[in-house]
Amino acid sequence: MRMVIIGGVAAGSKAAARARRVNPDMEIMLYQSEQHISYSACGQPYYLSGMIPKREALIIRTPADFADEGIEVKVNHLVTKLDTANRLMTVQDCQTGNTIQDGFDRLVIATGARNLLPEIAGCDLDGVVTVRSMTELDRFRSTLDRLQPHCAVVVGSGYIGLEIVESLSRLGLQVTLLGRNRQVFSRLDAEMSQSVHDYLMAQQVNVIAGDGIAELVPQSGRVREVVTLSGARLPADLVVLALGARPNVEIAEQAGISLGDTGAIAVDERMETNISGIFAAGDCAESRHRLTGKPIWCPLGDIANLQGRVAGENAAGGDARFPGVFGTAIFKTFELNVGLTGLTEHAARVAGFDPIVTVINAFDKARYYPGTERLKLKLVADAKDGRLLGAQAVGAGAVDKTIDIAATALMGKLSCLELENADLAYAPPFSPVLSPIIVAAGALSKQLK
Amino acid sequence: MRMVIIGGVAAGSKAAARARRVNPDMEIMLYQSEQHISYSACGQPYYLSGMIPKREALIIRTPADFADEGIEVKVNHLVTKLDTANRLMTVQDCQTGNTIQDGFDRLVIATGARNLLPEIAGCDLDGVVTVRSMTELDRFRSTLDRLQPHCAVVVGSGYIGLEIVESLSRLGLQVTLLGRNRQVFSRLDAEMSQSVHDYLMAQQVNVIAGDGIAELVPQSGRVREVVTLSGARLPADLVVLALGARPNVEIAEQAGISLGDTGAIAVDERMETNISGIFAAGDCAESRHRLTGKPIWCPLGDIANLQGRVAGENAAGGDARFPGVFGTAIFKTFELNVGLTGLTEHAARVAGFDPIVTVINAFDKARYYPGTERLKLKLVADAKDGRLLGAQAVGAGAVDKTIDIAATALMGKLSCLELENADLAYAPPFSPVLSPIIVAAGALSKQLK
Repeated sequence: MRMVIIGGVAAGSKAAARARRVNPDMEIMLYQSEQHISYSACGQPYYLSGMIPKREALIIRTPADFADEGIEVKVNHLVTKLDTANRLMTVQDCQTGNTIQDGFDRLVIATGARNLLPEIAGCDLDGVVTVRSMTELDRFRSTLDRLQPHCAVVVGSGYIGLEIVESLSRLGLQVTLLGRNRQVFSRLDAEMSQSVHDYLMAQQVNVIAGDGIAELVPQSGRVREVVTLSGARLPADLVVLALGARPNVEIAEQAGISLGDTGAIAVDERMETNISGIFAAGDCAESRHRLTGKPIWCPLGDIANLQGRVAGENAAGGDARFPGVFGTAIFKTFELNVGLTGLTEHAARVAGFDPIVTVINAFDKARYYPGTERLKLKLVADAKDGRLLGAQAVGAGAVDKTIDIAATALMGKLSCLELENADLAYAPPFSPVLSPIIVAAGALSKQLK
Repeated sequence: MRMVIIGGVAAGSKAAARARRVNPDMEIMLYQSEQHISYSACGQPYYLSGMIPKREALIIRTPADFADEGIEVKVNHLVTKLDTANRLMTVQDCQTGNTIQDGFDRLVIATGARNLLPEIAGCDLDGVVTVRSMTELDRFRSTLDRLQPHCAVVVGSGYIGLEIVESLSRLGLQVTLLGRNRQVFSRLDAEMSQSVHDYLMAQQVNVIAGDGIAELVPQSGRVREVVTLSGARLPADLVVLALGARPNVEIAEQAGISLGDTGAIAVDERMETNISGIFAAGDCAESRHRLTGKPIWCPLGDIANLQGRVAGENAAGGDARFPGVFGTAIFKTFELNVGLTGLTEHAARVAGFDPIVTVINAFDKARYYPGTERLKLKLVADAKDGRLLGAQAVGAGAVDKTIDIAATALMGKLSCLELENADLAYAPPFSPVLSPIIVAAGALSKQLK
């Protein structure tokens, strides 16, 4: 039995490791188009800011580590063609240009995603960078070192854009955040998003919301200015394009593997595609939203790891299930933590729920305990029965804990009536006597009565 | 309609406030035997250590605050007799010695708990102190100021003892921790408790486990030495007795209100006692353990608040339910966080479960992220179906978050098979790519297969 994995940043590496544990005898081969495999793309903003001094810290496992487990890894090898009927593929050595043929019994496609670029000229200008792969990271880093920029425009107000805003500000750059959406981090409801917006302004970030990039203006071969759709001219000796991503599905699509409505590869609960024995996992694959039941594209590192684990186990002969996602996400920008899980009020309405909501401001520890921080918490529940539908939290306080409690409550289908009596861990250094979740759930419960 | 509340540290204050919100017209009277009401007893170790400079920070609400809401408070008033048939009580003014009669339609008993003292002579010696009420706190503080002790013996290795060990060490005292139980914080399973023990030793605390106090030896009217049951002589110019507590139930018992097997007042889900219209809440009342279904005495500040809220709502004519507890608890000693929820492996066996367990060591953030800390996590699940039964965590890392996720999972009756695919909040500053809970749940799941 021979298993091949295409791509090894997160899902692919995890699939390989899991398959080996489930099946000690299987041949396992992993092709990776880049130089590196198994690294933390999520840590890149902190390497760029200098907070993590060594690039190597982001590398989780090397090809040699995999070899020790009997997993063969070929980096700089791009799969260019896939023949699912004959279980064959064509692989190109990106350094020599040579191609080889390889066969497989089981396949895991973990080709990831790539950055969306604006459809304008100049995206390849010196000083214009992106963040995702190690290749892009190295280019970003060397651009910083070489150009020593003073003012940057970060295009895109999603979480990567907001993390990079922090990185560049820490390096002393003047930063403009330019986002098409009127809301910064538009996955949040408007009043939560506004808190992020206000916070960034207070950090001296020039936030331009509701405007996009129209032109990149060069001078002496490097970028010097960004012109926006509304005609504003923003000086920029560094431009970061963080406009989101799209799944790398070409090799799958060409081979007749079905894509879903999201554009990512359609999979079942076993992470298997429409072709038996061929699995997909990570940023190239869809997930199912556990509240709406609908397919969702959720390109996040932890989901890639969970999916990779399931795909690897099943490819090796096991029978694991991936239950789907709640769209849980978190990031920080400067000292502001921002997180959400489940449905926002807006998303709940779109999905056909009749939501009740509450927004509270709370401390994350006993008010008198040194270091206590604030957070703003919004809970969304179903007016019918009080079942929790989602949570959003913003603040310097324990957003991560609050969101994880809510995400676990979503798994357990808990209602606000249950959550207002939750037996959570209280001591002054860790929580107010009643946790923000309990207080907010209590406020929702009153609306039900 | 007249409601009377006996006791106002936590449950009583909360009951009064809730009753007022539910019923704006009711007469509400609160008798408190001490000078203070509505304070955080849990914050006392941090006031003693000087980390919280002002004693007033621990006071949540004053009698004047209650008066503003139309709640009459009489402090230094002790209820000495209760006549449930005629709905009458005798109240003594502790300052004048005068007694008055008062009547009620609804009653909430929130008389709290008091410290257990060893049955030996000398517990009232100068230099021998306890922690619970503000009166005890003031005595502790003035003892520290007056005696300027150098070496302390803390008797009792429960969470209060361990918090006080930190407080006194921070003040520069040499501290011995003397506990009857062979395990420090014996609510944990032995291998988790051992980590706490080892940590305290590393902090230069002289930990004596499995030995108790036999004698307090005075000199010139103040304590100078502790003699242990095994005959060891420990120099001590300060002795803290933290041997646990018992509920204050005498007034209830004398009035014919039923106690439960735990010795605390028996209540139903509405926090009502065996006598209609008479409720009990907080440290004087029982809870039901949500996993064993059995009564448990759980004298903790957050539970007192939750119970007080339910009792107050019901006494005011509402219909709230308190679903019981999972025995969730957390504390810190120095920089070690210690928490648990649900059943330990030992408790699970005692309760008749067939448990599977796992113990992992994990980071609480991405390994490369500055400030990442470790924690040791033990999960206990039911071998039958993988349902989570409990979690214990010890370490400098995010024990509070981990325990709260587990406590919420207990509410949702989640199994390890579900938890290993939890969609929790991941970004490098907040969590490893797979949270410790997910990793531990995965390890448990393997045991089920």
